[in-house]
Amino acid sequence: MAWWGWGDPAHPRALPAGALEFLGAELGPLRPEPVPPPALASVALPEPAPVPDLGAPSDRSLAARVARAAGRSYPDLVRLRSGALERAPDAVLTPRSAAEVAAVLARAAGAGVAVVPWGGGTSVVGGLDPLRGDHGAVVALDLGGLDRLLSLDPCSQLAVLEPGLRGPEAEALLNARGFTLGHFPQSWEYASIGGFAATRSAGQASTGYGRFDQLVRGLRVLAPDGRLDLTPRPPNAAGPDLRELLVGSEGILGVITEVTVRVRPVPAVQRYEGFSLPDFETGAEAFRALVQAGSAPDVARLSDPEETRVALAQAGGGAGVRALSAYLRLRGHRAGCMAVLGFEGERGTLARRRECAAAILRAHGGLALGAAPGRAWAHGRFQSPYLRDTLLGHGVMAETLETATTWSGLARLYRGVGDALREALAARGTPPLVLCHISHLYATGASLYFTFLARQEEGAELAQWRAAKEAAGDAIVAAGGTITHHHAVGTDHAPWLAAETGEAGLRVLWAAKAELDPAGILNPGKLLPAA
Amino acid sequence: MAWWGWGDPAHPRALPAGALEFLGAELGPLRPEPVPPPALASVALPEPAPVPDLGAPSDRSLAARVARAAGRSYPDLVRLRSGALERAPDAVLTPRSAAEVAAVLARAAGAGVAVVPWGGGTSVVGGLDPLRGDHGAVVALDLGGLDRLLSLDPCSQLAVLEPGLRGPEAEALLNARGFTLGHFPQSWEYASIGGFAATRSAGQASTGYGRFDQLVRGLRVLAPDGRLDLTPRPPNAAGPDLRELLVGSEGILGVITEVTVRVRPVPAVQRYEGFSLPDFETGAEAFRALVQAGSAPDVARLSDPEETRVALAQAGGGAGVRALSAYLRLRGHRAGCMAVLGFEGERGTLARRRECAAAILRAHGGLALGAAPGRAWAHGRFQSPYLRDTLLGHGVMAETLETATTWSGLARLYRGVGDALREALAARGTPPLVLCHISHLYATGASLYFTFLARQEEGAELAQWRAAKEAAGDAIVAAGGTITHHHAVGTDHAPWLAAETGEAGLRVLWAAKAELDPAGILNPGKLLPAA
Repeated sequence: MAWWGWGDPAHPRALPAGALEFLGAELGPLRPEPVPPPALASVALPEPAPVPDLGAPSDRSLAARVARAAGRSYPDLVRLRSGALERAPDAVLTPRSAAEVAAVLARAAGAGVAVVPWGGGTSVVGGLDPLRGDHGAVVALDLGGLDRLLSLDPCSQLAVLEPGLRGPEAEALLNARGFTLGHFPQSWEYASIGGFAATRSAGQASTGYGRFDQLVRGLRVLAPDGRLDLTPRPPNAAGPDLRELLVGSEGILGVITEVTVRVRPVPAVQRYEGFSLPDFETGAEAFRALVQAGSAPDVARLSDPEETRVALAQAGGGAGVRALSAYLRLRGHRAGCMAVLGFEGERGTLARRRECAAAILRAHGGLALGAAPGRAWAHGRFQSPYLRDTLLGHGVMAETLETATTWSGLARLYRGVGDALREALAARGTPPLVLCHISHLYATGASLYFTFLARQEEGAELAQWRAAKEAAGDAIVAAGGTITHHHAVGTDHAPWLAAETGEAGLRVLWAAKAELDPAGILNPGKLLPAA
Repeated sequence: MAWWGWGDPAHPRALPAGALEFLGAELGPLRPEPVPPPALASVALPEPAPVPDLGAPSDRSLAARVARAAGRSYPDLVRLRSGALERAPDAVLTPRSAAEVAAVLARAAGAGVAVVPWGGGTSVVGGLDPLRGDHGAVVALDLGGLDRLLSLDPCSQLAVLEPGLRGPEAEALLNARGFTLGHFPQSWEYASIGGFAATRSAGQASTGYGRFDQLVRGLRVLAPDGRLDLTPRPPNAAGPDLRELLVGSEGILGVITEVTVRVRPVPAVQRYEGFSLPDFETGAEAFRALVQAGSAPDVARLSDPEETRVALAQAGGGAGVRALSAYLRLRGHRAGCMAVLGFEGERGTLARRRECAAAILRAHGGLALGAAPGRAWAHGRFQSPYLRDTLLGHGVMAETLETATTWSGLARLYRGVGDALREALAARGTPPLVLCHISHLYATGASLYFTFLARQEEGAELAQWRAAKEAAGDAIVAAGGTITHHHAVGTDHAPWLAAETGEAGLRVLWAAKAELDPAGILNPGKLLPAA
């Protein structure tokens, strides 16, 4: 991963033709020539604090420390590109086994060294900030060496994976045995199995395959004081479900060393297709009808009119797009909403599911647009983070946030967050583009995924971002949404957690942490707001 | 509820014709004339300890105390019928509001009075034992006065129910608005909404509708030190899921005062039908294929050969049953397994689902037996607890237990538990009938529901039961099953919880309890084995 941005530095990240002109017209003048990231050698880091031998290989080089100094949130990228990092881990530990992880935790607790568990490094919520808490040093515990498929039970459709496996590595190991995890978040190319579990990740196909917290059936977790070994029994009545306490614990309760996940046979067919819905409200009604009828596709996305407009503009001025726009205008979808539905499975079942879903969309005024929009979406599904780097170089803040609520509260949440982002950024003189889509369906509600783009306030990039983030967070809470549907809490969302979990709930989480991590070395400052 | 047994004392509880003779032939000589339960006035109770005013109406009458002295497990019934109860609550409190519940908890914590939250009184695992722990008195907190449907959100398919509503009351309130909870455990006629949530109940249709822990989307819980108000957002990534810590907490962490549940439209059609499978192993394979193909019915039961044989014998010697037996012998199902599949929903969808399921069963040698066996099962689905009382009168121990594991481990668990029960009871000179069925399907595994019947050891009924229970519990742990799939932990299963949750897991639960209930007044001795 490039130390200054997303993914392989050599990966193409050119914007579509005309995109910069389009954004300039929307957002105001942008830098025509991108500012390149600084050279690694020029990055200023604080001197590392001394770290005793913690029982695993240790790397204190500039490259290693910079590479684990931040996740990949927008403020992370701004800080990385600034060339002066206020924080970095004092060392990077690379254990080769669960036994070495246990040794590190025991020695770090004894020596008072904070430990940040490190998977794919893709957090977009400050979940990997190298914070020391009350301790004298902080290390990143890079779990990349724990990268095996430990076992596969094809009969029970269960696989035991180590936490350091990245998305494509885990898929390759499972695919070779005929199975898939079906978990494809946008960060999939780099994010890790342990990270998926620690953050309650949701993937693009999670409407069908289930969120990662639903795929996790068992866990092995090492804590400084104790180990939890939850074997993958079916749901049962043997007391509170501790699995649900560990999934989403973001490294503050223990280090995940094994994850047992539900797997499924590799689907024979994958089919993604496009629809247009007359407006966002009707589209949301159609999506609600889909999921409540048990007819939800595996991938379900409904863009709002603004996201649809931008997508059509980005698709360029080709004859196909012009014809599509003309057709949609003709059918009364002048401010229509583009939907992508994805189906995976056996050919026969799939045809029936597609027909059921299409009938429901048609009943809501939906127009089938065929496979091309679906293919276009599938083709670009992991590309946005690369393009964000390019936009940053041109002086564009490109940020996303996500929330979820009940179906009856969705319209209010949609308006509240959009208005908050538009007002907060307009007030700073950088009126944004705010795009939104429904990204995941549940019987009782859905998620909203917002993308907002604005001209960067040069020299005040972080303050600008914080203003937008705070306005959105407050609007989410005011509308009864969750502060995060799938990006997790980290440091960025911690201020709003109390509104969701409540004071007694936070006390219970602190009590669990005190029991498992009495020295408080695990990922200080994350998830739980300061006590 | 009859103080000495199950349900309305006037409810018919006569055994089917010939049943007693059949059981006598299988188990050895039984009492031909049933021993009636003693008169209430003759029941000896310990003197009640003094209880201060706790802020809610209090009843200290013999009838009230006896009615809350025990749940409805087999050992509970043996103790109740003995006419001498070693324990009873010192008072029964009947709060009329959540505010009164809060008052009771605050005052009880101050006064050192243990509180047993009381819903329907149907626990079969000792979850309602009036234990005092370290305290001077114990009260039953009867939540029957909190019995309202507080709100219904038809758009999000969510209803907010109070905990004291019993199964039929909740269904009636929801049905009047066009919705159903779809939760029908055998205890449904008396069990309560709060109890379902506190025990992670599973119902007969939970394969389709989901377990109660899956139906619960929000909770309000009052604890002596704090209150938790988890609103029903869709699944999200805002840290560990505290809902899953409270669901299944069996009254040790707090008192549930509101439950938000997912509801569904009342199904247009319900169809239950019978199949015969050639043997249990093949039947289990067929059921696994059903659920892993996404074609599981809403109700799925597969009886083992012994349960099938007893069911056919109990159905009497009518011409229909004789013809059915002859047909099954002819088709090679001499030691076959009866299955009941239940489907609920819209007519069109249902026909297609039934056809998919039937095709999978046929591919495994299944024979369709039509609607009669399904109707017979549905007709008797809530009757077993009444008949258990009659059997008790005739000197028959009739007990059930349940577990679950992965599909790959199911055969070993089935043999292990069955053998343990047969050996333990044969060793006491009372060889049992052990019947079993698969009762709930999951993608990764299934539950096993065992019924065992044996001649009571007169004067040593509890020791006899304990020997069987311990043998079964040890066999479950040895085979990697869960100690309880849906009956919960209570006192009876607590000794085995450490094997499942682990030492560190139990410490975390104790820490949560210490945070919410520092005086330890809530349901002492339940769920968690002594620290």
